[in-house]
Amino acid sequence: MHIRKLDPSTFQPSYGVTCTRIFPSPESGDTPFNAYWSLIEPGGASQLHRHHEGEAFIVVRGTGIMTVDDETEPVDVGDVIFMKPLTDHTLANASETEQLLFMNVYWEDIKLLLAEDDEEEAAAPKGVLTLAYPTPPNPNGDVHLGHFSGPFLSADMYIRHRRMMGDPAYMVMGSDDNQVWTATMAEARGETPQQTADHFAHKIDETLQMSRIDCHYFFHPNATGLNRQMLDNAVSKLYADGHLVAKDAPALWCESCDIYLFEALVRGKCPHCDAECCGHSCEECGLPNQTVDVKDAKCAHCKSTPVERNVRRLFFPLEPHREMLEEYHRKTIMSNQHRALITRLMGDELPDICVSHLCDWGIPVPMEGFEGQIVSAWFEMAFGYLVGTEELAQQEGIEGGWRAFWCSDEARVVEVFGFDNCWNHGVWFPAVLKAFDANANPPGAFLSNQLYRLDNQKFSTSRDHAVWARDILAMNSPDTVRCYGAYTCPESEQTNYTREAFAQFVEEELIGKWQGWLSSLQQRMDTLYGGKIPEAGAWTAPHLSFLKRLKGFLDDATEAYSLEGFSPQRAARTACQLVHAGNEFGKSESAWASSPTAHNELRTSLALELAAARCLAMITQPLMPDFSNHLWSCLGYGEPLKEWETEPHFVTPGQMVTGLSDDYFPTPVISED
Amino acid sequence: MHIRKLDPSTFQPSYGVTCTRIFPSPESGDTPFNAYWSLIEPGGASQLHRHHEGEAFIVVRGTGIMTVDDETEPVDVGDVIFMKPLTDHTLANASETEQLLFMNVYWEDIKLLLAEDDEEEAAAPKGVLTLAYPTPPNPNGDVHLGHFSGPFLSADMYIRHRRMMGDPAYMVMGSDDNQVWTATMAEARGETPQQTADHFAHKIDETLQMSRIDCHYFFHPNATGLNRQMLDNAVSKLYADGHLVAKDAPALWCESCDIYLFEALVRGKCPHCDAECCGHSCEECGLPNQTVDVKDAKCAHCKSTPVERNVRRLFFPLEPHREMLEEYHRKTIMSNQHRALITRLMGDELPDICVSHLCDWGIPVPMEGFEGQIVSAWFEMAFGYLVGTEELAQQEGIEGGWRAFWCSDEARVVEVFGFDNCWNHGVWFPAVLKAFDANANPPGAFLSNQLYRLDNQKFSTSRDHAVWARDILAMNSPDTVRCYGAYTCPESEQTNYTREAFAQFVEEELIGKWQGWLSSLQQRMDTLYGGKIPEAGAWTAPHLSFLKRLKGFLDDATEAYSLEGFSPQRAARTACQLVHAGNEFGKSESAWASSPTAHNELRTSLALELAAARCLAMITQPLMPDFSNHLWSCLGYGEPLKEWETEPHFVTPGQMVTGLSDDYFPTPVISED
Repeated sequence: MHIRKLDPSTFQPSYGVTCTRIFPSPESGDTPFNAYWSLIEPGGASQLHRHHEGEAFIVVRGTGIMTVDDETEPVDVGDVIFMKPLTDHTLANASETEQLLFMNVYWEDIKLLLAEDDEEEAAAPKGVLTLAYPTPPNPNGDVHLGHFSGPFLSADMYIRHRRMMGDPAYMVMGSDDNQVWTATMAEARGETPQQTADHFAHKIDETLQMSRIDCHYFFHPNATGLNRQMLDNAVSKLYADGHLVAKDAPALWCESCDIYLFEALVRGKCPHCDAECCGHSCEECGLPNQTVDVKDAKCAHCKSTPVERNVRRLFFPLEPHREMLEEYHRKTIMSNQHRALITRLMGDELPDICVSHLCDWGIPVPMEGFEGQIVSAWFEMAFGYLVGTEELAQQEGIEGGWRAFWCSDEARVVEVFGFDNCWNHGVWFPAVLKAFDANANPPGAFLSNQLYRLDNQKFSTSRDHAVWARDILAMNSPDTVRCYGAYTCPESEQTNYTREAFAQFVEEELIGKWQGWLSSLQQRMDTLYGGKIPEAGAWTAPHLSFLKRLKGFLDDATEAYSLEGFSPQRAARTACQLVHAGNEFGKSESAWASSPTAHNELRTSLALELAAARCLAMITQPLMPDFSNHLWSCLGYGEPLKEWETEPHFVTPGQMVTGLSDDYFPTPVISED
Repeated sequence: MHIRKLDPSTFQPSYGVTCTRIFPSPESGDTPFNAYWSLIEPGGASQLHRHHEGEAFIVVRGTGIMTVDDETEPVDVGDVIFMKPLTDHTLANASETEQLLFMNVYWEDIKLLLAEDDEEEAAAPKGVLTLAYPTPPNPNGDVHLGHFSGPFLSADMYIRHRRMMGDPAYMVMGSDDNQVWTATMAEARGETPQQTADHFAHKIDETLQMSRIDCHYFFHPNATGLNRQMLDNAVSKLYADGHLVAKDAPALWCESCDIYLFEALVRGKCPHCDAECCGHSCEECGLPNQTVDVKDAKCAHCKSTPVERNVRRLFFPLEPHREMLEEYHRKTIMSNQHRALITRLMGDELPDICVSHLCDWGIPVPMEGFEGQIVSAWFEMAFGYLVGTEELAQQEGIEGGWRAFWCSDEARVVEVFGFDNCWNHGVWFPAVLKAFDANANPPGAFLSNQLYRLDNQKFSTSRDHAVWARDILAMNSPDTVRCYGAYTCPESEQTNYTREAFAQFVEEELIGKWQGWLSSLQQRMDTLYGGKIPEAGAWTAPHLSFLKRLKGFLDDATEAYSLEGFSPQRAARTACQLVHAGNEFGKSESAWASSPTAHNELRTSLALELAAARCLAMITQPLMPDFSNHLWSCLGYGEPLKEWETEPHFVTPGQMVTGLSDDYFPTPVISED
């Protein structure tokens, strides 16, 4: 016997309470659960947290208030509170005088954990109003492959998949006309900034159409008065409510040009990582700066070193929104890199964000006392999302306008952006939105990506180190460009594009393996069945094993298109693996054809191979819509493929297979020379 | 949240007290422990008892007297009393007025129990008695890579996996001493055939050991009298029962050498596919011949064209066994290529198979009237399997001898061979076995493979166009050779080996990616946790998504090691995909390390990455046992990895990770020059 006496002097602080471990102990050896005594002092509470284990609290002395996710209940001695994995929980001492003693027991149950997740998936409501909104690009150039393989392709794949899942899902894009970059480029082109903005916005829209990025609404912020009206209203309201404050603060000033420097007008080194950067934030490490802290700052125009001058501008103090943000971050889906960056930022004191600048391009601050100042284009963007959504809703006849998406617990808003935008979208935009309208919900999920590199260097419009999406699309099919973009998508790390690797991928994988398999399938179908799809006949163990593999590929793709596991790379790679498996299976099956009496097994094999081709059409529908539609119609379907399936299905027997041996993928052209 | 209120009215009498169960509950699902509330009335006591679980009492209200075996102690609120398995225990209420409330928790801990009572081990559940038997090679040369990557490696991987599944599983190998090939080679070497057979059988056995092919018994057919005795008995019985008949039939005769030609002694072209072949069957298309139908037949010795002569020999007419074979084929697991070949053969009239030849090397026909004739070595092999099994059973002390495997519906026999052996093993051996003993069951499954090629040409011992397994194993580790052999295993089609591709695979995949990932993991573990494995902390959606991927890899591998989906290629490729996924996850996780407040998320990431490494050890245990053992011990496990798991598990927190950054895979050496 071993008796462990209750001894509060051995308790150590943890999660806001004091604890001591009971099991496992040296006497018990490994136990299949962990048990602790925990004490909460009068008025105290355990820190809100979640973990993957199942857990139970058993109250032994005192009274408490238990909160699990959105439920709150009083608890007493003898109560046993059970919490499922991954639920947020906290226990508060209800008494002002007495300690609360409880035992907590937790245990690992991977099955329960995975079952929870499956249940959630199964319970996912159908028909969720969905919006994906990639960050509007600066209209100072066309779309390069870096933009394309990041936010645009991701948003498009995600929305196409949601539509297959039955959701009314939309993608809105726009151009960020009022950025100072536009004015800079306009000067170089000898145009007005709006002329420049319109020129490139039109180009961008056209390029997206060429690449089958299915944008449902393209938002031009200065096209109607709506954007300015919304921003005037928001700035005035936030100022009146005290969320925006006027403050004299140091700013950079170029004495030689006699201009106030901000964003694109200042060049220097990031105060965090020393990479080249402008005012506002760093593309390399994703961290924000305060402009005055940019190292070796120079005026972008004349290259001279600026001085500091106090300028009275509008600021949005972020620190008061800390609690709201912490809660928001807990329940929002985002990549772990994004969450890590946010956690790091939230660990420091949150800054006052400068949201007005001395500039003559942009939307003027509507209040008196800020003459000559415009509202920062970033701040404008936070509301531009709402205006773009409003205009989409008007076009589509969606009742409730922007509020249908942004003020409803039933809707889903996903923002899609490059890593350098995590700070804006993840931290201060949500606070600004909530301060503006307490009923609004910031996005429920973010899809973010890292930088795409060209020949191992950063894409750069100014240095002309870029592959323009328009150029490569003019010479290659959208399918090949999309597939390779997803295959090499910079998800968890920067990836590199080379023209040679693209050409090799198209030649070896798409033409060699994909086209090779489908051609062989067509030839065998023609020879054996005159192209008419047979019904499956006799089944063998390898037949069944192949069907299971098809199910596995669909599961992988379903996960790759979900918010939680979103991965264009995995979607593209799963499609390739499916083709390889189909190809090997096809070869392994060719033996039946030479056995005159094996016709029942043979037709099962062909039916399964055609089911594999059907799965390929399914998996590639969000990724390579033209190819998927072509393949689908080759399989004899008259109606387009609309619905996502998580089980493999046979192609309807009796349908005619045609055209699979047509050369579908053009030989890659990688240079105009 | 689910709160279970303490309600003594629900308590039921048990062991002299009243109790109610807390866990498991409908809400919690299965928990790895059981928990109860128990109440003892004033003056009462729980009944003295013992059980095999570990147990703890936690006193929540009142005071008591605890007795465990010979010890007695007073206990109070907050005391936790731990009892080892199989100790007698009772708790008495010390108060005359107040109830005693305690929680009792018990859990099964086999390890703890075995430490207490060794006898329990005998009660461990037994699995399915399993035998894998690759075709015995001709002892006229050592093992080349073609043999190795086909039947030997497959059988070994299969048996290793079965053992992890808890089955008493064995692999028997042997040499096919009495083939005429042996005599031909002996002539060239100036030895007796038995000397040649012994020489090469020894080499083969040694090479298999070098490559960690874990053969439990190596069968030498002429070493004891058992094989001849079994064959004499079988031939006599089958002859007496009319299954073997004497028949005058045309045979090939070399007039210049004045010898009867069969098997290796005749060379020509396959009557079905025109490939070069010998008598009996064709290595290229797998179809049998009748020797006299070999096209352009020549004497292998003098190259002259033989004549036909009628010779009276023993035949096994196969047609009478058609019905039995058709039923047998329906329920037997085999590849679709194998089944297609069988279906084709069964579609024609089944031949009378010649099973005796005029030759002086081999086991003589035991009946009168067949002087100068030996029993065909193929026919001998059908019974050699039983004798090899008998000798294994004797060595291992398995009751029932060969019948324990071959005459029991509870056992599992798997034959493993190259495609050219489908005819023997799939069609006529089963008929011969059933004719010999109606209680015997032919194998329940076949694992067969296609030809492995070297630099796009057939491996050939005679033309010295071969890579000897011994040579490549002397210069490289068994792990790398096994992994590449599986990765390129000729499953559904012939595959090609080149020295350059092997070197590239080892350098880029095993050294580059596997070693690269594991080294990085060790470095991060050292830097972040001093090598001590952390417990998972805070969970995000990407964390959960990665855990689901691990489950997917284990599912894939489980399928790849199953008879129905057996695929060494898939096992090896799944291991590679797991490494790639772990590597990407690791990179995506590195962001936490730079966020000082993200330590709870960071430890979940590391715990998951280590769980991935643990999955890799699991998946590679049958494929690369040395590597798997190394990895397992690097993860801090003292006991070897023995049991297959279908769910991912965390590595036990607190264990030390060491040695993952050691250079494990040697740089490939592909030539002795």
